[in-house]
Amino acid sequence: MGSEAEGRDSALWPDTPKGPLSAYRARASFSSKELLLFWDGQDVLHFKKTIFSALENDPLFARSHGADLPLEKQRELNFLRCKRVFEYGFFNVEDLLKNPLKILALISCLGMYDWSLANKYVLHILIFGSSIFSSGSEQHLKYLEKIYNMEIFGCFALTELSHGSNTKAMRTTAHYDPATQEFILHSPDFEAAKFWVGNMGKTATHAVVFAQLYMPDGECHGLHSFVVQIRDPKTLLPMPGVMVGDMGKKLGQNGLDNGFAMFHKVRIPRQNLLDRTGNVTSEGTYSTPFKNVRQRLGASLGSLSTGRISIIGMSVTNLKLAVSIALRFSATRCQFGPMDKEEIPVLEYPLQQWRLLPYLAAAYALDHLSKTLFLDLMGLQRGLLKGDHSARQAELGRELHALASAGKPLASWTAQQGIQECREACGGHGYLAMNRLGDLRNDNDPNCTYEGDNNVLLQQTSNYLLGLLEQRLQDGAHFTSPLKTVDFLEAYPGILSQKFMGSSKADWLDTAALLAAYRWLVCYLLQGSHQRYCQEKKSRGSDFEARNNSQVYFCRPLALAFMELTVVQRFLEHAHSSSVPPSLQAVLKRLSALYGLWSLSQHVALLYRGGYISGEQTGRSMEDAILALCVQLKDDAVALVDVIAPSDFVLGSPIARADGELYKNLWAAILQQNGVLERAAWWPEFTAHKPVADRLKSQL
Amino acid sequence: MGSEAEGRDSALWPDTPKGPLSAYRARASFSSKELLLFWDGQDVLHFKKTIFSALENDPLFARSHGADLPLEKQRELNFLRCKRVFEYGFFNVEDLLKNPLKILALISCLGMYDWSLANKYVLHILIFGSSIFSSGSEQHLKYLEKIYNMEIFGCFALTELSHGSNTKAMRTTAHYDPATQEFILHSPDFEAAKFWVGNMGKTATHAVVFAQLYMPDGECHGLHSFVVQIRDPKTLLPMPGVMVGDMGKKLGQNGLDNGFAMFHKVRIPRQNLLDRTGNVTSEGTYSTPFKNVRQRLGASLGSLSTGRISIIGMSVTNLKLAVSIALRFSATRCQFGPMDKEEIPVLEYPLQQWRLLPYLAAAYALDHLSKTLFLDLMGLQRGLLKGDHSARQAELGRELHALASAGKPLASWTAQQGIQECREACGGHGYLAMNRLGDLRNDNDPNCTYEGDNNVLLQQTSNYLLGLLEQRLQDGAHFTSPLKTVDFLEAYPGILSQKFMGSSKADWLDTAALLAAYRWLVCYLLQGSHQRYCQEKKSRGSDFEARNNSQVYFCRPLALAFMELTVVQRFLEHAHSSSVPPSLQAVLKRLSALYGLWSLSQHVALLYRGGYISGEQTGRSMEDAILALCVQLKDDAVALVDVIAPSDFVLGSPIARADGELYKNLWAAILQQNGVLERAAWWPEFTAHKPVADRLKSQL
Repeated sequence: MGSEAEGRDSALWPDTPKGPLSAYRARASFSSKELLLFWDGQDVLHFKKTIFSALENDPLFARSHGADLPLEKQRELNFLRCKRVFEYGFFNVEDLLKNPLKILALISCLGMYDWSLANKYVLHILIFGSSIFSSGSEQHLKYLEKIYNMEIFGCFALTELSHGSNTKAMRTTAHYDPATQEFILHSPDFEAAKFWVGNMGKTATHAVVFAQLYMPDGECHGLHSFVVQIRDPKTLLPMPGVMVGDMGKKLGQNGLDNGFAMFHKVRIPRQNLLDRTGNVTSEGTYSTPFKNVRQRLGASLGSLSTGRISIIGMSVTNLKLAVSIALRFSATRCQFGPMDKEEIPVLEYPLQQWRLLPYLAAAYALDHLSKTLFLDLMGLQRGLLKGDHSARQAELGRELHALASAGKPLASWTAQQGIQECREACGGHGYLAMNRLGDLRNDNDPNCTYEGDNNVLLQQTSNYLLGLLEQRLQDGAHFTSPLKTVDFLEAYPGILSQKFMGSSKADWLDTAALLAAYRWLVCYLLQGSHQRYCQEKKSRGSDFEARNNSQVYFCRPLALAFMELTVVQRFLEHAHSSSVPPSLQAVLKRLSALYGLWSLSQHVALLYRGGYISGEQTGRSMEDAILALCVQLKDDAVALVDVIAPSDFVLGSPIARADGELYKNLWAAILQQNGVLERAAWWPEFTAHKPVADRLKSQL
Repeated sequence: MGSEAEGRDSALWPDTPKGPLSAYRARASFSSKELLLFWDGQDVLHFKKTIFSALENDPLFARSHGADLPLEKQRELNFLRCKRVFEYGFFNVEDLLKNPLKILALISCLGMYDWSLANKYVLHILIFGSSIFSSGSEQHLKYLEKIYNMEIFGCFALTELSHGSNTKAMRTTAHYDPATQEFILHSPDFEAAKFWVGNMGKTATHAVVFAQLYMPDGECHGLHSFVVQIRDPKTLLPMPGVMVGDMGKKLGQNGLDNGFAMFHKVRIPRQNLLDRTGNVTSEGTYSTPFKNVRQRLGASLGSLSTGRISIIGMSVTNLKLAVSIALRFSATRCQFGPMDKEEIPVLEYPLQQWRLLPYLAAAYALDHLSKTLFLDLMGLQRGLLKGDHSARQAELGRELHALASAGKPLASWTAQQGIQECREACGGHGYLAMNRLGDLRNDNDPNCTYEGDNNVLLQQTSNYLLGLLEQRLQDGAHFTSPLKTVDFLEAYPGILSQKFMGSSKADWLDTAALLAAYRWLVCYLLQGSHQRYCQEKKSRGSDFEARNNSQVYFCRPLALAFMELTVVQRFLEHAHSSSVPPSLQAVLKRLSALYGLWSLSQHVALLYRGGYISGEQTGRSMEDAILALCVQLKDDAVALVDVIAPSDFVLGSPIARADGELYKNLWAAILQQNGVLERAAWWPEFTAHKPVADRLKSQL
């Protein structure tokens, strides 16, 4: 299959250009084209190439990351590009349903170009669109065509100025008026203003607004969502009673217009209630298929997971871009060497390898997580569409919610830390805006915050695990879940009595040993979290306090360790599966081992403390194993980057072009900037108006 | 003294405004005014207040961190403000020499306002000025007056496009021509262009340029510095043969114009050589007071330390600003609570305390390091001025170099991580540009890179320690240094056989136990680093490889642990000294203990691995001690912030004003932005030119 695949592939993907990176490419242990095809599959690969080419060939998408564009211009350009994406018709529902990974690929390709563009598009078509589709009923389908032809432009308004994580405390109200069969939408004060809403700042004509639903008898039925027109699509001026504005400059994603809105007794038709989870009859009676508010909120867990799983993919995309930049730089930047006159690439230094290669491995590991979790989610949604109300379906929803709630923090933090390391690893040149690491850091940052603050989200996962333990202790229930991520916990008492039997580097490189250590760690943290929670509950009597007091060193690392184990396990299984072409086995096994050991090495203190490992040699040999993997992978690093990096145009970083001509490309990009050699317009301020030293001292 | 001091102080510092933060202020265990006076001293306090007031009262300094200013405008404003600073005459040499901490305070106050301003000013007056003063001779003093009245504007040009850390490999040349008694400055190609030079982009008329000095016989005498005029002060146009330009947008500090320059056979008078370390006679003979190039470079160690110690102060300043923002936010942002209806400040959650309070402690600990190290440096420079050539003076130079080379990485990384944690801890609102956390992160970032990449710098410190060990092993020399930071190593064999004798929380809260644990850790890493180096040297035969292969898990953590110990020890001594007013003792002891334990907790794996601690309880009780300190400090947090935060105007973050009116201030700042409620100028692009879906699909 190898050579045939390669034949097809060479048409799909051009040869890498010759240049300073060729030496590393020649030393790689595998063919990057073969890995590309194995990793993405021909269908997705072709789709990506189509998108990248379209952007590169369209002057509307020309840009430089060092350009100095006013905010207004950034938003205008981003809107025009968003329109253009519609015209390219990348979003073909039938095609995407056939291979759902193409949805991920589409978001990732647009995001690789610019997250402002990807998010503007996704917020309109996927978040606004699918929340109407999934929370509304047939009468709301009319909006979908208007979304698709951009007759209206949408946004999703949940967060308020004074409330984010605590959604139940949202204060926007929707009072039903039976006389006119309308809801009256109202913001009691500015603290209840909808806030941070993407697309709301300048573009959106319609919003899905979450508000507390009140009936005429004064009863509140909790948070519901409503379609509200906020601007006139003919003029983009606000509708009467709506005060809507732009929040201004953010740390990143400044092509996207985040906005706020206050409603002053805005009347909307009864039918604008998205009525899947609760409805009001024309006579003014409230009805819901759910027993209570809590259960009704629970039904939306699935859609929360969608957002979080998408963010895993967004974070991985950023990590891929950052490591691509830093590793191509490191393979071409020479500094010092064994002899005075002969300098070597900084990638040859073990310290530089150790700083960067684990993040390269993480990019692959988390990319695999992102794809497999997305497919799991598609399975859940197929069940929902089929009306599957089985216990398994409910369990799957809970498991995916737990995985998404820890996967998002793990992926977004890994990307955050990886981008930072890459920025520093590129030295001063990494601090130049045109080289893009600043934009990546700024654009990735909200992944740690939106769809739930990372630290808050982790509690969902630890609560899930503690809940299972509780059921086991109280009812003797088995640890088992549809995706089998918790099944190993069934043996937790036995696992807790295990110890690491090896001591050498080779022992740590054994896959089974790595997984066993991680399983022990999760059991240890689960037991510790449960004990701490029970102690605190007993001594303080408050569930609220007991939970809060068991987060820092217990529930938080529990959720992270459980998630890391899931990532490691999935990546190891993939790397060792029979579907891997023989020539790719070695490199994938090394990558998965490096990610696993490097992640585990952050928990060594607990392995010692709980007695799972002992002796000086055991810890030291784990470090030696990590360093050995780094050395083994350093000659593969450039080829591994060639697999995950987009085209030069999309990557848009002069220090990281595929030809490796670091200095030529950087120098050219510097000289191509506007007015680079011109004197400043304000030069007379220097020459004519000299300061009089101490002139103003008397004013102090 | 307490009440008298407070009396004077109340005139110096206004009362904090009443508001949502008052409750925390009322619960504080100490008076923030008393701590302010103790921490800064009246002289510095008055100086700071003078600077802050001058900036606030001058409309030229009005600004918003959310403003959308073009690069050119940022640079113009920054230049105008820099001129204005001259006119205020803050820089009074006589006054600053009387209390050198005012130099630190001046840089810090300007930096709290804007690092572009502080650095533009410092690069001109301190870096350019003092390198002429310290590397030149009497004939060069003429420049100093021109610097002070801004007749010329200066920059410091060392780094080249292809070389940073490896200064010896710089490629700019200066050939001496005896016929005209000139040097001919030349850049062989663009890779040798001077690069990253602050002030060079648009403003500098003169540069101190480092170039390889060649004599007519072809002999190269290594890197020397020359004063080179690069622009005409009358026109700001480049001098003939000089190609000088602006590097464009950076991640941060965009008011500062970093630039590049290439020299095409530019002739400068012989006298422009800064001749302290090497000179050329008019007849064309080279002479130097140093035996060899290496020794000549070594003589500049002291000035390297100045830059690095300044960066410690800059990093601390950023950390102070970030924790001030995040803690005031956390004390006023309420989310969830024990009851459904009653929400509590997020600062009440142990997780939030644990995320932020250690960085508050670090801000105090590193501030104390910054000040004491700066005073040590002044001591060194007094010796230099007096012509002290004693062995102690040389030893002091080496010790300070080692401390500066690890102190800069520790401080800049702590600030980097702290700012990131603060950004995330403020949730979405932390992502709004106006709240400043983005600018802080971007402006702090180069502290990790300039004056030496952090990872590269740490090797200076580990080399120093390993060198001392080598001398001890070979010659039986004692571990001793002028500042006594290494003296404890004298007992290293005994220390290595020690064990932690306690196991409880109280045992960890004992200051002596904390220091003993850190000393053991440093000895353990020193021994390990030495062993690894020797093994590698033996097996590979190359010193270069042996050093590189002992960095990751040995020399790097050795340098960091040694530096942390120094910081902890200095802060503990200060907190426990008899000069601390009784009412401040408790809070300072807690702060120093928290910083120490939190830092140490990052090395727990090594404490277990090396057998210094054992048993599950020991590790767990360290965590309990950290959490207990957080709980004890959370009611003091707001008052501790009041001590280190600048005025509201200088802090410039609506979510962190001293009145604590989080939402009112944020909402007001949002509405005050330009065009916030206006529709976009490009609105017809939405209303009139609808996209035709899939129109361009055929072009794919």
